[in-house]
Amino acid sequence: VITQKEKHLQGIFAPLTTPFVGEEIAPDHLAENISHYNRFDLAGYVLLGSTGEAVYLNDDESEILMKAARDAVPPGKLLIAGTARESTRGTIRFTNCMAGLGADAALVRSPGYFKSRLTPDALALHYQRIAEESDIPVIIYNIPVHTGYSLTTETIHRLSSHPNIIGLKDSSGNLGFVGEILEQAPRNFDILLGAASIFLPGLIMGVSGAVIALSIVAPEHCLRLLRLFRNESWEEARRLQLDLIPLNKAIIQTMGVAAAKYALDLTGFYGGPCRSPLPPLNKQEEDHMRRILEKLHLIEA
Amino acid sequence: VITQKEKHLQGIFAPLTTPFVGEEIAPDHLAENISHYNRFDLAGYVLLGSTGEAVYLNDDESEILMKAARDAVPPGKLLIAGTARESTRGTIRFTNCMAGLGADAALVRSPGYFKSRLTPDALALHYQRIAEESDIPVIIYNIPVHTGYSLTTETIHRLSSHPNIIGLKDSSGNLGFVGEILEQAPRNFDILLGAASIFLPGLIMGVSGAVIALSIVAPEHCLRLLRLFRNESWEEARRLQLDLIPLNKAIIQTMGVAAAKYALDLTGFYGGPCRSPLPPLNKQEEDHMRRILEKLHLIEA
Amino acid sequence: VITQKEKHLQGIFAPLTTPFVGEEIAPDHLAENISHYNRFDLAGYVLLGSTGEAVYLNDDESEILMKAARDAVPPGKLLIAGTARESTRGTIRFTNCMAGLGADAALVRSPGYFKSRLTPDALALHYQRIAEESDIPVIIYNIPVHTGYSLTTETIHRLSSHPNIIGLKDSSGNLGFVGEILEQAPRNFDILLGAASIFLPGLIMGVSGAVIALSIVAPEHCLRLLRLFRNESWEEARRLQLDLIPLNKAIIQTMGVAAAKYALDLTGFYGGPCRSPLPPLNKQEEDHMRRILEKLHLIEA
Amino acid sequence: VITQKEKHLQGIFAPLTTPFVGEEIAPDHLAENISHYNRFDLAGYVLLGSTGEAVYLNDDESEILMKAARDAVPPGKLLIAGTARESTRGTIRFTNCMAGLGADAALVRSPGYFKSRLTPDALALHYQRIAEESDIPVIIYNIPVHTGYSLTTETIHRLSSHPNIIGLKDSSGNLGFVGEILEQAPRNFDILLGAASIFLPGLIMGVSGAVIALSIVAPEHCLRLLRLFRNESWEEARRLQLDLIPLNKAIIQTMGVAAAKYALDLTGFYGGPCRSPLPPLNKQEEDHMRRILEKLHLIEA
Repeated sequence: VITQKEKHLQGIFAPLTTPFVGEEIAPDHLAENISHYNRFDLAGYVLLGSTGEAVYLNDDESEILMKAARDAVPPGKLLIAGTARESTRGTIRFTNCMAGLGADAALVRSPGYFKSRLTPDALALHYQRIAEESDIPVIIYNIPVHTGYSLTTETIHRLSSHPNIIGLKDSSGNLGFVGEILEQAPRNFDILLGAASIFLPGLIMGVSGAVIALSIVAPEHCLRLLRLFRNESWEEARRLQLDLIPLNKAIIQTMGVAAAKYALDLTGFYGGPCRSPLPPLNKQEEDHMRRILEKLHLIEA
Repeated sequence: VITQKEKHLQGIFAPLTTPFVGEEIAPDHLAENISHYNRFDLAGYVLLGSTGEAVYLNDDESEILMKAARDAVPPGKLLIAGTARESTRGTIRFTNCMAGLGADAALVRSPGYFKSRLTPDALALHYQRIAEESDIPVIIYNIPVHTGYSLTTETIHRLSSHPNIIGLKDSSGNLGFVGEILEQAPRNFDILLGAASIFLPGLIMGVSGAVIALSIVAPEHCLRLLRLFRNESWEEARRLQLDLIPLNKAIIQTMGVAAAKYALDLTGFYGGPCRSPLPPLNKQEEDHMRRILEKLHLIEA
Repeated sequence: VITQKEKHLQGIFAPLTTPFVGEEIAPDHLAENISHYNRFDLAGYVLLGSTGEAVYLNDDESEILMKAARDAVPPGKLLIAGTARESTRGTIRFTNCMAGLGADAALVRSPGYFKSRLTPDALALHYQRIAEESDIPVIIYNIPVHTGYSLTTETIHRLSSHPNIIGLKDSSGNLGFVGEILEQAPRNFDILLGAASIFLPGLIMGVSGAVIALSIVAPEHCLRLLRLFRNESWEEARRLQLDLIPLNKAIIQTMGVAAAKYALDLTGFYGGPCRSPLPPLNKQEEDHMRRILEKLHLIEA
Repeated sequence: VITQKEKHLQGIFAPLTTPFVGEEIAPDHLAENISHYNRFDLAGYVLLGSTGEAVYLNDDESEILMKAARDAVPPGKLLIAGTARESTRGTIRFTNCMAGLGADAALVRSPGYFKSRLTPDALALHYQRIAEESDIPVIIYNIPVHTGYSLTTETIHRLSSHPNIIGLKDSSGNLGFVGEILEQAPRNFDILLGAASIFLPGLIMGVSGAVIALSIVAPEHCLRLLRLFRNESWEEARRLQLDLIPLNKAIIQTMGVAAAKYALDLTGFYGGPCRSPLPPLNKQEEDHMRRILEKLHLIEA
């Protein structure tokens, strides 16, 4: 449990997929996947994030999944819930619902629907109210590819000293932006990267960890990259970072959650289908994924 | 009630705001507003659209509002519900929930969250499944400013002959796009414009009506524009179209739903606040709105 | 010649292609094309525009082409030159060079390279200096697809009363934007549309003409559309407008100048190749163009 | 001189400003600035780049500036010329003109005007022809903020093994993109970063140097960052990287070339005005620049 604002968000957090059987959620498969992941030295998990197809789940389903996850995650690993709704009040309610079920912190994506009216002041107020009224610590989530805009460094700077806002997950892919925040933010404000292709350069810049979909498919590789960085084994680290880029590109930019789930099915986890309208991989995409996984020795050739 | 696919979507549909008292929904004020609007020759209403801050409402609230609206809307006017969810299955369920409460048709915004994976095929399949399983007719809704992309004319063309897809609301602002669809679509596929600033030119092009926020603030003006078009009073129509542009710009591009609600408060309707994080107008914006309303004789100078 | 600021920009202006033989300019073919076009009731021509691949020409080539065009364009038709350079001073110099060779007016695209620093004030100053120092009247040119931004209606409004700025060519495709300018601008400030797919709706809105690539391939059709509008033959006009959309889409959005030149080669004009890096049409694109031209009876099936 | 394709593009290259007196070029001030810069351990210079306002210069002016620069740059430092024109042929001609005046290599920005028609094949052909016909080695330049699109990693990969294409300058700000190229490209294909805010993380990733506007204002700081990286003084390097971000943001994102020139005027170089339409800094912007320069001890407080 996070008891006060200090360096907590360190290491690699795996953003869990939501297992479906047909179109129904399968909390047992979720628990099973988590128990597999528990073997690795991950810092924790994010439930109900983008990789978890959270926008496809209703509140009842989300609660069932949180209960299953809470039981499966051992002490010593953080369980973070994605809790953003478009309204301030909806976000607070759902955050406290998740807190009641045992979530350790809330990852709150900035609202996007009325983006042209969401001034820096309106966004700061949104996060301040959530931070005030939330029972668990809040992590700001900046993901322009989904929201259609980036939070400004000024807005994040204003929020970074709030006692209940402990950090930022940034998926902008822009390390210059991250650097500007690192230059301004208090030391106990943690930054997690959301882009695995720049994990090593981000660590050099000063981020304390990452929430990366790559880690659900290749947790060992991601953790090794972190160890190589900590051991200052630069050349090996650089080589591994570059090697991981094709897999990350396939999962993130090109084929998305369906690719991650396909890879899980091939590597001993439960992947299963995505909910519609997300399409499954076609034959060609499946072949491409297999080749990448083979190259990284995640499956046999 | 719409009994078969024919020209139904003709005329002006008012996209209703959701009245709040504090942050609570106020269905009585909704009913009251509708009874005011019933005096005008509007073709119907859209409940739970963008102007209705639908993304800020949960399902329970949405149902209460639909019941109140259904009671207030007389036969002869259509009551259309915005029913989009990100998932296909969530959209179908909520559409049929609204159908059960008396909605005449469903306006279904295209999903946006995983846009990079939503191929034309995936989007066509999404709408086909919704159309198959929905108890009421479906209207496709293209609004790039909120979804981050535009449906293609090819996708719309594929869907336009489905017996349960009766039309399109297009808020792209791009009449070339609309023209391309008009050139291809069957005659019983209706197009409603979502952009009041190009209503007259759109009518010339062949759209059959509009769903425009302007009509909740200035219904008389919008209806007069439609009559002038039908009477071929071109010069007067052109003049009125241009006169309406500043009010429309204030509501749509610049100040949003808060501006519409502020105007309602000044003109005998119930406006009230927006839900957070949408900010209220500042003093300067209020003055700007007053001046525009005075110029159109919607309030006294 | 334009002697004072009054309604001059009325009707359809054909944006001429630049004929090449190999990669060398072919002024004789330009003159020949113009003499063909002179048979039609076009209001004039634009030389050195986007359709003329002006960015691929150096100053010497531009001068040779202007001399050839000036000799070929009869009195009674305007010869407008595209004269934009990125710098204010470069634009003034090239404008006056073209003026010296007989251009009747200058079409000046807004600069784009340093767009983030080009504030409304900087852009207004740019056009004011050009207007002051230019020997011929100036037409503002707004084309976001090439410059990466749109001029604001406020900037255009500020410039619209300058005695040497006679109008605007708008290629934004956004009639709401055009309407806002029409609502504000003085009566002697003419607006030419740059988007053929919305020519009829634009005429209804109040534009006085168009500069459209469609008119170099299908001048008769474009002129008939204008006549139908002037005669208030709405239904026929609407039908023709919709019929022209596929050809316009092919030339403008999909296949560009190479498609226009291919069509010219098939219809008795000189088309020829584009300069590199613009690629020629592939076989499939050629077939697509042929089918569109056949459908409009521009070539035999 | 570059005699064969091997690691040449190592270290920091300063993109020179073009000094103007009034609106006239001032080659003597250019020579003077270069002789100042020669005291530093820079790897070379880029003349006629974005920072050099190259789009505001005609060919005659460009030649005069190249002659002045060639005389001022000593052996042992590379003199690279920005030589892009929109057409392939124009680029080849200007590249060979610069080669004739002594440029060591050509930095060729990808063409942008007809971007929708510039397929990967067309762009590859463009660079291949330039590489074949150019008398000096070619460096590809990817700068989406100016061209409106990014070259793909596939296109760059295709070009990276051409014997006369020695490297890439990337100003996308996206290290994931850079990483993907590093993972694919041959070892003798050098990558220079164009974004100073991510110089350190880029070095970790494997870039061999940078062309950064920051280095014309703060060459000593940039060179120290490179030395700290080479000495593996990570903590100091990280600290310096973050310290440099505000100055870089001011020059690059916010105030542009005018800010760089203002800083030069304050630090013993010749800055002078920009060409119109680029506006000068306003009073508030000047104060902001002064404060940043003071903080970095580039001027006295």
